[in-house]
Amino acid sequence: MYKETTQDKVDELLNGAAEAFQYLKKRSIKDRAALMYAIADKIASLGPELITAAMEETSLPEARLVGEKARTVFQWRSYADRLKDGACLSARIDTAIPDKTPPKPDLRKLMVGVGPVVVFGASNFPFAFSTAGGDTASAIAAGCPVVLKAHPGHLKTSSLMADAILSALKEEGWPEGIFSHIYGNSNEAGAYLVKHPLVKSVAFTGSFHGGKALFDLANTREEPIPVFAEMGSINPVFALPEKLATNPQDFAAQYAASLTLGVGQFCTNPGVLVAIKGETLDAFKKALTGIIQGSLPANMLHKGIANAYSSNKEKMLSQKEVTVLASAENKEIEGQGAALIAATDAAGLLSNEHLLEEVFGPFGLIVSCNDVADMLLVAKKLKGQLTITLAATEADIRQQPELVNILQDKCGRLLFNGMPTGVEVCLSMQHGGPFPATTDSRFTSVGSDAIVRFLRPIAFQNWPDGLLPDELKNSNPLGIYRTVDNVLTKESI
Amino acid sequence: MYKETTQDKVDELLNGAAEAFQYLKKRSIKDRAALMYAIADKIASLGPELITAAMEETSLPEARLVGEKARTVFQWRSYADRLKDGACLSARIDTAIPDKTPPKPDLRKLMVGVGPVVVFGASNFPFAFSTAGGDTASAIAAGCPVVLKAHPGHLKTSSLMADAILSALKEEGWPEGIFSHIYGNSNEAGAYLVKHPLVKSVAFTGSFHGGKALFDLANTREEPIPVFAEMGSINPVFALPEKLATNPQDFAAQYAASLTLGVGQFCTNPGVLVAIKGETLDAFKKALTGIIQGSLPANMLHKGIANAYSSNKEKMLSQKEVTVLASAENKEIEGQGAALIAATDAAGLLSNEHLLEEVFGPFGLIVSCNDVADMLLVAKKLKGQLTITLAATEADIRQQPELVNILQDKCGRLLFNGMPTGVEVCLSMQHGGPFPATTDSRFTSVGSDAIVRFLRPIAFQNWPDGLLPDELKNSNPLGIYRTVDNVLTKESI
Repeated sequence: MYKETTQDKVDELLNGAAEAFQYLKKRSIKDRAALMYAIADKIASLGPELITAAMEETSLPEARLVGEKARTVFQWRSYADRLKDGACLSARIDTAIPDKTPPKPDLRKLMVGVGPVVVFGASNFPFAFSTAGGDTASAIAAGCPVVLKAHPGHLKTSSLMADAILSALKEEGWPEGIFSHIYGNSNEAGAYLVKHPLVKSVAFTGSFHGGKALFDLANTREEPIPVFAEMGSINPVFALPEKLATNPQDFAAQYAASLTLGVGQFCTNPGVLVAIKGETLDAFKKALTGIIQGSLPANMLHKGIANAYSSNKEKMLSQKEVTVLASAENKEIEGQGAALIAATDAAGLLSNEHLLEEVFGPFGLIVSCNDVADMLLVAKKLKGQLTITLAATEADIRQQPELVNILQDKCGRLLFNGMPTGVEVCLSMQHGGPFPATTDSRFTSVGSDAIVRFLRPIAFQNWPDGLLPDELKNSNPLGIYRTVDNVLTKESI
Repeated sequence: MYKETTQDKVDELLNGAAEAFQYLKKRSIKDRAALMYAIADKIASLGPELITAAMEETSLPEARLVGEKARTVFQWRSYADRLKDGACLSARIDTAIPDKTPPKPDLRKLMVGVGPVVVFGASNFPFAFSTAGGDTASAIAAGCPVVLKAHPGHLKTSSLMADAILSALKEEGWPEGIFSHIYGNSNEAGAYLVKHPLVKSVAFTGSFHGGKALFDLANTREEPIPVFAEMGSINPVFALPEKLATNPQDFAAQYAASLTLGVGQFCTNPGVLVAIKGETLDAFKKALTGIIQGSLPANMLHKGIANAYSSNKEKMLSQKEVTVLASAENKEIEGQGAALIAATDAAGLLSNEHLLEEVFGPFGLIVSCNDVADMLLVAKKLKGQLTITLAATEADIRQQPELVNILQDKCGRLLFNGMPTGVEVCLSMQHGGPFPATTDSRFTSVGSDAIVRFLRPIAFQNWPDGLLPDELKNSNPLGIYRTVDNVLTKESI
């Protein structure tokens, strides 16, 4: 039904995207925001067919998908809201000082789109991180056309979303080259896109293997381009003594709920929990064991993911430093994932790199430490993470300044209690962390700051006012934030 | 006199840098700004020994070096000024909405230093882009310790500057690990630094060959890191008809002055001039020929650069599409560079990639076009540039919207008249352009926006006010700009 897009067709679509980029350059941020609201409305108006298709293709439950659809619509609207005040354009104006020696020219700088962006949809968020997801919304907000490679796991869902975007473009009178939808199942199809000279940036959410391969390809192009790959994470939770002692049963319930949410298929799934040995850790483990044993296996996104979960679990359990703590009493059948908790100690973790690998699914590894010194060693050993959580009281934190200090270098988001699943869409969100969590920790893929991934600055020197882009004209016709002679203002000059 | 730093010593210095990074994290932006003012004062107070050393080592004239020293001091002070209002930290706060479904957590984000930065000094700006130059100043502003590899062309100058920074650190009570000075002449010494796991970012100004090699090395690390390499440019000037006709003699004088300034040893040297054939272009060429013939050869930075200039000129002149238009009547002796103007036409340029290569020195290539259509083809053929200049009247620009549109995609700074040499240090400056001008067109290496190259965001979720960094506390004790619930403000919460 969904035929692989031929290379000739891909070339044609990319030429269309390059033309659409030139068109987009001439339209203001207000116009782009209006287009984004129209796309949001179109997605919001999609009927039950969308939810049904996604349920069939991803096995995700209806309530989750209804929520994810609302989130997706919110992303388009809130990024458009943020775009309108122009803060993300970082407009800067330095007026001329002719009698300086040498004379200071008039210089005005703003951020402009980089050009066509290739987006690879994620399997685990068929709406919010896929076809019409955050990467697509933020690229279009930046004035960059999107070439979207549909995720093979949900082609019908992808095609319904693509149709929604394309019909909004048509109704609002924008060129269709702003959004292209490509089918391709092979690694070669993805590589062809990333290596194409007309492509100027790449966004990807998925496995380390996939993201790193695209990153390497992009860097070996004649003109290297940025790749924003979000490649997952084990999202460690450090349970500090006073907090753990407060109510280990409650905490176990909270941890288990986050670990098994959506069959563990979240980038921010808390796959590792680190705590100090003792009675309260024992109580936590006991409570956790009870919950996990009673948990029910459920269908994963697709069979490939379920098979990978199964073999990754097996590989983890085959490490001599790892034992099983608890597993679901109802065994998984093919395509399902069942929760499993394994255990190791700090010495085990420190001696075997494999224990820090992600097992994508409802898998948790409890790392018991002899003392705080052990905990610090574990913290130092961690690679880059999307999130790290401190389950702690204020007193716990004040007693461990070094731990907090180390953990800040290891993640993009640091939580004080709560669980890392649930990624709020707002300006303050950071979804991106030091490598290997993402390929570029300087940017986020959630929240409207995601827009700046697809922008670059250009400075205009000594241009007459009438020939400048509206964003930089003296009268500030768009009413945006600008830094004029080092003062941030919305005033005209 | 300046011995190669051993690998053991490099390791020791990098460990010191990593420790200093942890120390820097605990100091506020106000403290860092105070340190930067102290470093600026120390550089300002360096005696005539500095200028004498630089004159001996670089052959640059005294007046130029005195000016460059003042510029260097200004860089430290102006970056510190900009740091103090905290705008570059992009602090964002979203307060909690507990009764939202699901509840919205309190999220607060700010930019923090990435860790130790390796800086490679440039040969052509022994003060402003070398040891105590813009890369060092912006990294320290970002809270990142600097490991500086001295440029082999000016070791004494480098060592005097390093001593100034180190003595400021000592007098102000900061750890010396904030700045390390390394001697190493080989490519291997540079590669060892870039591959070192404790290094988190690299800044470089120099040749394409050198910058691209560092970029490739950094991308093949186990943990890839960003490389900000500024690798030069041919900085085309497009002379449009009405402007060219106004006063071709004046324009020739202006072009020749920029081309030969500092023996052509600027990244923004206007190495290519594109114009339409005709009487006014002939008049321009005639005037230019007279000026160039009378120009005097002068010592280049070092013999290696003079030899490269000589062989690059020769290679360019050996291309069958290129003829000599004018050369200095006084011939160059070893170590000197003499100005030379060559000529080709659009067809020649379009048929031979080599004609777009940089010849570092006072070399200009005049490209004559049959018409505007030719000019558009030349514009499309260009690779990424630091600058592009339109020598134009307003009417010229209004008649060539497509040309302006194409050129915007090809550069970081677009000038309306004037010449590209002279890079103003201010917030609106963009010094960086699409590849191969730089490895990352999203950032600048001049002006205080250079600081953000060495920052990454971290978000704090649900942290108690007392445990947050000062920048994010409710009371806003540092008085910085923050975006609170989507509103930009310096107010407390």
